[in-house]
Amino acid sequence: MKEKKHGGDIYTYLDKYQKVPLDFSANVNPAGLPKKVKKALCKSVSKFAPYPDTECRELRKKIAEYEQVAEENLVFGCGAADLIFRIVRTLKPRTALLAAPCFSEYAEALKSEQCSIGYFYLQEQNNFILNKDFLSVIAQPLQIIFICSPNNPTGQVVEKSIVYEILEKANSIGCYVVLDECFMDFVKDKELYSCTDLLNKFNNLIILKAFTKNFAMAGLRLGYAMCADQHLIQLLAECGQPWSVSTPAQVAGCAAVDSKEYLSKSLIDNHRERKYLQKELNKLPVIVFESKANFILFKLLVDLNLSLELYKKGILIRNCANFPGLKEGFFRVAVKKHRDNRQLIKGLKEVFEGAEHG
Amino acid sequence: MKEKKHGGDIYTYLDKYQKVPLDFSANVNPAGLPKKVKKALCKSVSKFAPYPDTECRELRKKIAEYEQVAEENLVFGCGAADLIFRIVRTLKPRTALLAAPCFSEYAEALKSEQCSIGYFYLQEQNNFILNKDFLSVIAQPLQIIFICSPNNPTGQVVEKSIVYEILEKANSIGCYVVLDECFMDFVKDKELYSCTDLLNKFNNLIILKAFTKNFAMAGLRLGYAMCADQHLIQLLAECGQPWSVSTPAQVAGCAAVDSKEYLSKSLIDNHRERKYLQKELNKLPVIVFESKANFILFKLLVDLNLSLELYKKGILIRNCANFPGLKEGFFRVAVKKHRDNRQLIKGLKEVFEGAEHG
Repeated sequence: MKEKKHGGDIYTYLDKYQKVPLDFSANVNPAGLPKKVKKALCKSVSKFAPYPDTECRELRKKIAEYEQVAEENLVFGCGAADLIFRIVRTLKPRTALLAAPCFSEYAEALKSEQCSIGYFYLQEQNNFILNKDFLSVIAQPLQIIFICSPNNPTGQVVEKSIVYEILEKANSIGCYVVLDECFMDFVKDKELYSCTDLLNKFNNLIILKAFTKNFAMAGLRLGYAMCADQHLIQLLAECGQPWSVSTPAQVAGCAAVDSKEYLSKSLIDNHRERKYLQKELNKLPVIVFESKANFILFKLLVDLNLSLELYKKGILIRNCANFPGLKEGFFRVAVKKHRDNRQLIKGLKEVFEGAEHG
Repeated sequence: MKEKKHGGDIYTYLDKYQKVPLDFSANVNPAGLPKKVKKALCKSVSKFAPYPDTECRELRKKIAEYEQVAEENLVFGCGAADLIFRIVRTLKPRTALLAAPCFSEYAEALKSEQCSIGYFYLQEQNNFILNKDFLSVIAQPLQIIFICSPNNPTGQVVEKSIVYEILEKANSIGCYVVLDECFMDFVKDKELYSCTDLLNKFNNLIILKAFTKNFAMAGLRLGYAMCADQHLIQLLAECGQPWSVSTPAQVAGCAAVDSKEYLSKSLIDNHRERKYLQKELNKLPVIVFESKANFILFKLLVDLNLSLELYKKGILIRNCANFPGLKEGFFRVAVKKHRDNRQLIKGLKEVFEGAEHG
């Protein structure tokens, strides 16, 4: 098995075994597309012939209301990943700071623009929580900082007071802060952590969000960025081709924000199932890290090629060995539906028992 | 009316008048999405939840067969425009040559990488045909040439023997040639002009195609590039985010290539309707340029704000004044269904008569 850089590659398995694997390697809402989204897509197929609205007018209105930001402070992309690249291409920073481990596309985008990257390594003994120590490394000539809350792959949120201090210090040296809140909708007490209300205070804050995870729309590719600096928003919109947000993505996005009951149910389900998975994982020879998101990071206490063994059983999990700041033995699993989560635990138990008696 | 850089902006009109305009400003197949594509999309909505297949496996097999090229020689993008940017970002050419007038995204992409652009101006008295004179400007330190056949907005194809000579000369100086064949499927005798068979002879040839126009899938965003240089194909695939081709685009693309009868009917309809439009336009105070594509370029012989006057009647046409190599008075209209084409001619007649008596 050749492991991919990212999770979610169900297609290699599908190609090999002609069946869909149980995918715990990508953090997509297990509820599947909201019904309203499915309906809207089918109803709108005729609208997919013309070019998409480059200004995403309808979606913009809906998201502005949903996020309580002004329409001019929004820019849309072909998933949040598209926006990560556009931010880097637009700002062309020379030096960047990442809190590792984190989502690998920040580094990919920065490298593509020959930006030098400094890593602040989050401490395992501290559950990979980003604390005030981070402030000490914010100094000139830093031009951009990426932080993720809840962080992928650790599931840890950053305290709002710390985000505030990061923004202040970064602002004082003319440094942008990209705050990736793509998993924030899964946080039970998200009003305590989401920083959209800080947008009006800090022009150097860019918040990233996507429909990928919360509304299970990873295949549709829709993300957005929010920033109070309208000039920057304009530059981000003009970076690259004008038609990067497809019509299906716009139609689906509009229907998704109308699916509030879907999201609140997902939140409850995720919370319950995460607790279940944490409890069960704790019975196994692993260290489980606390998470507020829809995935869990754990570390093996035995020597085992865990992702390969589960792959053989048709279960995909994310081997996190290629995250800077992590190493062999770290794995991430998504929180899925109860039946699937039980399957995962069953599979894990079998692998560990097999290893014991092997 | 603030005119956009590109045609196809039905949304500003829609927003203003709450009705869909008659859009002759974008060159999308008027037949709408093929039935098979509509069906496939509705049947597949559940598949839009996971991340898309970054390797576009199923689509790759189909397109390789459709284009008669090896699977490894294909790379897919979020529309052909995405690939134009990826080509420029990957090759990072310092000097480029464009045959003007041409599609404006070539220059946009080149400018975004600070590439200096030389223009070879196609001659109006020669119907904007790209002839052997073009060869004389291919010289060091040129690193990339963009040509479009049939060319947007002129509708002119480039003779294959000339493409051959361009490729040879470019090859001798280590220069890439991007040949945009996005409108080739509308050419009645396309086997005489399409250059896919030259891919095996020239490693410096990159051919661009899209589903935007031929299969009326502009809103879905799907394009591809073909090149014999597999290393370059790999670099293009790795440029930017890994998930730029959405699942709906992949599903639609697979269904589209199975819609051969749709394409052959479109070809016949387009040919007949283009002849009709040319005949009718020739009765008006304009100069009509021959076209082999699904659009027609013409030049006004009277002083008139034609696009604005038609806009007031709910008809959008493409004002070509912002194309380098053209000027005020040039307009492009798409070839649509007969009823719509009659509407356009009626509208044009009214505008010209109004101007005469105004």
